Amino acid sequence: MRQSKLFTKTKKETPSDEVAKNAQLLIQAGYVYKNMAGAYSFLPLGLRVIEKINSIIREEMNGIGGVEMHMPSLQEERLWKQTDRWGDDNVDVWFKTELKAGGEVGLAWTHEEVVTDIMRQYVSSYKDLPFAAYQIQTKFRNEIRAKSGIMRTREFLMKDLYSFSANEEQHKEFYDTCADAYTRIFDRLGIGSQTYKTFASGGAFSKFSHEYQTLAEAGEDVVYVCEEKGIAVNKEVLEDVDLAELGVTREELVERKSIEVGNIFSLGTKFSDSIGLTFKNEAGDNTPVIMGSYGIGPARAMGTVVDLLADDKGIVWPESIAPFRVHLVALNTDDDEIRDWANGIYTSLQKLGVEVLFDDRDTRPGEKFADSDLLGIPYRVVASKRGKEDGLFEVVTRATGEVRSLTEAELFDDFSA
Amino acid sequence: MRQSKLFTKTKKETPSDEVAKNAQLLIQAGYVYKNMAGAYSFLPLGLRVIEKINSIIREEMNGIGGVEMHMPSLQEERLWKQTDRWGDDNVDVWFKTELKAGGEVGLAWTHEEVVTDIMRQYVSSYKDLPFAAYQIQTKFRNEIRAKSGIMRTREFLMKDLYSFSANEEQHKEFYDTCADAYTRIFDRLGIGSQTYKTFASGGAFSKFSHEYQTLAEAGEDVVYVCEEKGIAVNKEVLEDVDLAELGVTREELVERKSIEVGNIFSLGTKFSDSIGLTFKNEAGDNTPVIMGSYGIGPARAMGTVVDLLADDKGIVWPESIAPFRVHLVALNTDDDEIRDWANGIYTSLQKLGVEVLFDDRDTRPGEKFADSDLLGIPYRVVASKRGKEDGLFEVVTRATGEVRSLTEAELFDDFSA
Repeated sequence: MRQSKLFTKTKKETPSDEVAKNAQLLIQAGYVYKNMAGAYSFLPLGLRVIEKINSIIREEMNGIGGVEMHMPSLQEERLWKQTDRWGDDNVDVWFKTELKAGGEVGLAWTHEEVVTDIMRQYVSSYKDLPFAAYQIQTKFRNEIRAKSGIMRTREFLMKDLYSFSANEEQHKEFYDTCADAYTRIFDRLGIGSQTYKTFASGGAFSKFSHEYQTLAEAGEDVVYVCEEKGIAVNKEVLEDVDLAELGVTREELVERKSIEVGNIFSLGTKFSDSIGLTFKNEAGDNTPVIMGSYGIGPARAMGTVVDLLADDKGIVWPESIAPFRVHLVALNTDDDEIRDWANGIYTSLQKLGVEVLFDDRDTRPGEKFADSDLLGIPYRVVASKRGKEDGLFEVVTRATGEVRSLTEAELFDDFSA
Repeated sequence: MRQSKLFTKTKKETPSDEVAKNAQLLIQAGYVYKNMAGAYSFLPLGLRVIEKINSIIREEMNGIGGVEMHMPSLQEERLWKQTDRWGDDNVDVWFKTELKAGGEVGLAWTHEEVVTDIMRQYVSSYKDLPFAAYQIQTKFRNEIRAKSGIMRTREFLMKDLYSFSANEEQHKEFYDTCADAYTRIFDRLGIGSQTYKTFASGGAFSKFSHEYQTLAEAGEDVVYVCEEKGIAVNKEVLEDVDLAELGVTREELVERKSIEVGNIFSLGTKFSDSIGLTFKNEAGDNTPVIMGSYGIGPARAMGTVVDLLADDKGIVWPESIAPFRVHLVALNTDDDEIRDWANGIYTSLQKLGVEVLFDDRDTRPGEKFADSDLLGIPYRVVASKRGKEDGLFEVVTRATGEVRSLTEAELFDDFSA
């Protein structure tokens, strides 16, 4: 994409009304726009990052047999009364509104009730189980205080997967399979080494659940972690966990701040009992379905990556979720010959299948380099008059600062890999 | 995809609470689920259709230089008061709700105000113009009465593109370019021959706008159309249009019911004046940006296709938006040899890059064929014991009923094209 065709621009200053590093940098670089407290727009570069994160999540969820669907936000009270989650006394994040046709509706902040109700149409026999369905859909939560930039907002995309099993063995098998998929997802997002599968409160349904916590100073959560053994426990349940069973002592656990980037829950028969999702087992008896739920917020993952990997010059994207792989920065574009030549390099890289952002603007070199650092695209390739004369391109790796000089043949060879 | 892994099932009966053919068939076939009046889930097959429609729209919008972004639903009154569209007296489709932190917010039913505000950050000079930005995003409208199945709902996906121009010439050029893209979109969706670019009311901003109206008995709109000349006029503006200028007489126009599948609007400087989106022209003067807006509802397009093309056996998808291209129906699957062989055919077709739904269920042939007709996948390939013995596959084209007998080599050759 040509940068001249991108309507966004970087800003000189960080926004004064944001305290979170992720939002400061993402707004300054033109990835997101703050519409109100807790509601952001994803501008073209930001949407590209979100879509790359979604693709990774989708691949891994499809890989474990998840089937994608899409459920609505608008909700009538009927189902939620059955699980006692309609009242504002029980759930403090509802947005409720009135239908002009009469009656109150809420905006879904989660979808357990909804998906359980839908599956009543389709599950009747043990032969229909197990299976898993997921969506990547917008949730609304009426947070008293939106905070941490794009990480805790009032409207946000969420991948929520729900599993349906005939018995505990089936459930356990899927739960563990999904846990492994989550580990792969955070690895692929570039935050795997700092992300721990963490023992957490199970809520009403089971003794423990698991969260995926990424160690970060900007985190809202507190975990106790033994990095060496790869074991982490949420502060909330430290007293309840049998540390000996986990193979760790209290002394080995260090208190750290962290960001919850995912969670997986055994729901037992809580929802299938309340909403009436049953199946006939092999003996012909009506039996409640055993469920699990598994969530990841793509924008929260994006914010975590920014918070964790950014440096004093700006954002640093891992290749897997960068909006583009290469930032081709053309200098001396007032010279027609250089401009045509840089255009040719852009076209050639695109033909090789490389995702390129092409800075074809008539701007000073210093401004171009500063913008490039701020945007955080993994490789900067500089096409300049001097480079053309020498037959060399300067290639800078954003994450490490490594600088290489490549011939045109080497450049194409390097990026066609 | 294996049909045994699809959690949805077809129903014997059409749903009793739906009058629209599109919703009746889509629910019966398991494409959608009605969660409440005006809010539907898109189940795996339905989501695949929506995503194909989105892909076509996205390709065409990118092709005319549109840049994709994503704006939030939650809206504060600030911007909408500037255009006098916050009050329920002026706009009767708002959903409004209270923030726990204090203050009222609304759910966006359109995004002109929002996108105009965002662009204030990025447009300063005539050099920044023209450009166009779009999103495919969920709109909320508090309709008194949801109707026409998935075509007029309270929550729906919409592609809304906004154009920003420095002068009328730039605006006109983009408007016409987008009109052509719309024509291509409806052609590619399989409803081009019945869809007319129609003169319609311009609202407050210009004398006329254009709607894209698809002739259909189930339509809510009325147009006057001359099929021979390809000219259509919305009933609302029949008195205001200079028919001679259009090259048609009143006698040539026939009254028809129709579905509005898209619309394109010149907005003039209505929003840029109210919200303050200006640029410095070449003389250095502050000048308001000229805007346009261009909408298509993917679910409405999907419903229109179903209404228009379905027959008495069920849905008939055009290849371009079918959830799968081939429905491989295996018979005699209680025979291990046949089952293994059919599995092999499934794998081979997938390796050829063909999108296949594989009916691997242990169900009676009659039920499989009825389901296949109802689902409406373009080509049904039958893999049976007798076919294996004869070395032939029965291939049925859903739209025409044409039946062919192909050898394995012919089958692979036919679908690898």
